Amino acid sequence: MQLINAEVITIGDEILFGQITDTNTQWISAEIDKIGIKTVRKSSVGDTREDIVNVLNESLKRADVVFFTGGLGPTKDDITKHTLAAYFNDELVINKEAEAFIKDFFEKRGREFTEINRQQAAIPSKCTYLPNKTGTAPGMWFEHEGKIIVSMPGVPNEMKYLMTYEVIPRLKEYFKTPIITHKIIRTIGIGESFLAEKISDWEDSLPSHIKLAYLPSFGQVKLRLTGYGDDFQVLADDIDAQAEKLRPIIAEFIYSFDNQELEESLGTILTENHETVAVAESCTGGYLSHLFTSVSGSSAYFMGGVVSYSNEAKMNVLSVKQETLENFGAVSEQTVTEMAEGVRKLMNTTYGIATSGIAGPGGGSEEKPVGTIWIAVSGPEGTIARKFLFMGQRSVNIQYGSVTALNMLRKLINRTLA
Amino acid sequence: MQLINAEVITIGDEILFGQITDTNTQWISAEIDKIGIKTVRKSSVGDTREDIVNVLNESLKRADVVFFTGGLGPTKDDITKHTLAAYFNDELVINKEAEAFIKDFFEKRGREFTEINRQQAAIPSKCTYLPNKTGTAPGMWFEHEGKIIVSMPGVPNEMKYLMTYEVIPRLKEYFKTPIITHKIIRTIGIGESFLAEKISDWEDSLPSHIKLAYLPSFGQVKLRLTGYGDDFQVLADDIDAQAEKLRPIIAEFIYSFDNQELEESLGTILTENHETVAVAESCTGGYLSHLFTSVSGSSAYFMGGVVSYSNEAKMNVLSVKQETLENFGAVSEQTVTEMAEGVRKLMNTTYGIATSGIAGPGGGSEEKPVGTIWIAVSGPEGTIARKFLFMGQRSVNIQYGSVTALNMLRKLINRTLA
Repeated sequence: MQLINAEVITIGDEILFGQITDTNTQWISAEIDKIGIKTVRKSSVGDTREDIVNVLNESLKRADVVFFTGGLGPTKDDITKHTLAAYFNDELVINKEAEAFIKDFFEKRGREFTEINRQQAAIPSKCTYLPNKTGTAPGMWFEHEGKIIVSMPGVPNEMKYLMTYEVIPRLKEYFKTPIITHKIIRTIGIGESFLAEKISDWEDSLPSHIKLAYLPSFGQVKLRLTGYGDDFQVLADDIDAQAEKLRPIIAEFIYSFDNQELEESLGTILTENHETVAVAESCTGGYLSHLFTSVSGSSAYFMGGVVSYSNEAKMNVLSVKQETLENFGAVSEQTVTEMAEGVRKLMNTTYGIATSGIAGPGGGSEEKPVGTIWIAVSGPEGTIARKFLFMGQRSVNIQYGSVTALNMLRKLINRTLA
Repeated sequence: MQLINAEVITIGDEILFGQITDTNTQWISAEIDKIGIKTVRKSSVGDTREDIVNVLNESLKRADVVFFTGGLGPTKDDITKHTLAAYFNDELVINKEAEAFIKDFFEKRGREFTEINRQQAAIPSKCTYLPNKTGTAPGMWFEHEGKIIVSMPGVPNEMKYLMTYEVIPRLKEYFKTPIITHKIIRTIGIGESFLAEKISDWEDSLPSHIKLAYLPSFGQVKLRLTGYGDDFQVLADDIDAQAEKLRPIIAEFIYSFDNQELEESLGTILTENHETVAVAESCTGGYLSHLFTSVSGSSAYFMGGVVSYSNEAKMNVLSVKQETLENFGAVSEQTVTEMAEGVRKLMNTTYGIATSGIAGPGGGSEEKPVGTIWIAVSGPEGTIARKFLFMGQRSVNIQYGSVTALNMLRKLINRTLA
């Protein structure tokens, strides 16, 4: 199996200086890994010709394909395409297709199409134009001495669009990449090491052409099965057979065999059951609603939510009793239970979920330290509340609390919430 | 002016293959930036001797200080310290201080102190031992031909501990560093290219020791002024003077001179004015509430929100009139106006914000294409609604819609919302 090596390079002082987080390189290496292209080096360099030329020279010594992101904006500090044009002894020319798209892009938004905008359509004459339907900076595909150099904007959604619809298909074609297929089994509620122990016999029994990887994230562990072979269908069947062997061993922790997010798989279940849900959020502050509504078509089962940050909102909108708040406090089993039941009644849904806790950094106490979160799920058969303690920063506690709330609903529906 | 250049290198296949997110390099470059050390290159390499030696050779050509994180675990695949020992023609010896600490570390946790644990105390004899009070892998400080090489564990909190208490103080002492200072001016409501045209004269007039960078993200553009010099106060004054020259040119678009997020700067204004806000969200689905509540202390001015995904929720919770929904539809000026006024009344706040639109990918029409979003802001002096058309994927439309809603409140408060 021919191994194809890649290097992923971000261009921009803002990443070098630590002003913004680079999420592009992780995404790119994970995506190309799926088609059998191995990342051998990642680099970040500044917006200077010398840095870009140096890193490209070094990368071409090691890699078959080089990905650039960044430095394609219209402003003076963005020099990637000029530098690449010079590197390949080429010149920038206005690409008519790009020009037409950018012109339309601005007109649709009722904004003036200026010369500086038009210049975004200028790309090296020898490169292949990669249409970017999500922004004004085109992608560029260079073939150079049997190697591929790709240049994309640094804006993550624009880069992802170009990778998905333009770059990955071309790479498969150009490098005749081997047949590789993946199946991702998503688990929640069990740590990586415990999971590894539980499934070690199964893992040891995997055939040599199927590899397992553990991908942990926010209280979840994704198990990725990767198969290498010549026949896609045979591979897919082999992998499905292994997944079926795994199922009974960790059934209670698996929420998806199709690499669906937890909120997506919940949506599928709720839709199939013709059931609906509403949420009442205190400490998660809207993030739980956001997870539900980030799924296209969620309006079929997600009726709405209430972010009851103030006690008044808890009482006036969710009908939480004043005595409950006075006697037990906002962060309590009693309050979160009344919130869940209140929003279920208010929105007239099958299920209600509620969160109330201390996201931090302030507001903690001996008795209720930062990270303390009560979560309740309410359904036709009653309401169950659980207390959790997350030890992260504010944003982390909010995310953990929201994902944990989703998992409690999953278990309530599965009747596995003891 | 002599700059101290640094390179930051992560070691580990899990970062290279995109299985985990690297947050270390951003944190390190931001921290050293504060003491005037400029990151000139970041790299990620795999757990192989060849990769580590190659990247170190390359880095020492460009940089005065090289930071390594990762590859210091006790397992076979962690080879950083062996590789560094070989590189410096040195050998690993048990550091007594490290050994005592690690032994104590395990005993305190009631875990057996094995030989493999003891070997974590083995470091190259010529390096300076950097005690790591947060874990079992020591930090290492090498001085080599006037340059510094630092090796730290990849676990973020261990790396941060070592940087803060051991590495940064040593770097300050070792290097006589120039001053680098940044000022970030945040703008919203104007595209990068239009901004660039508006301020090009000002940009061209910047003195040579002050550099400008554009950092665009979701309808916002951050302008970063970076000054290089020897006297912090002189530099800070120079940069402030340039910022003051810029202010009148783009006053209406600037929301922060202090690098605050829009939701933070709004929070500051609302707190100062003793005013409060509540939100009613349809298409943004909780994300607008999430932005408000992501700010620590937001409970002082953010009373709550309603995610009214269903028409029933719009009517029953927000008191939107049934005729309004029937006559104009959920995505309309009339509905979003009633939503904003409804939530303001419901939560008894100074301001109410509402969003209603088509996030997509489904639900679009000729008349109301995907990305159409109505936003209303309601205050003591009345309610103003605006229609926007965003052309991204679902997640992008949700983020644009939320940020635009924040900006409408900003303008309402500033009385610049015409």
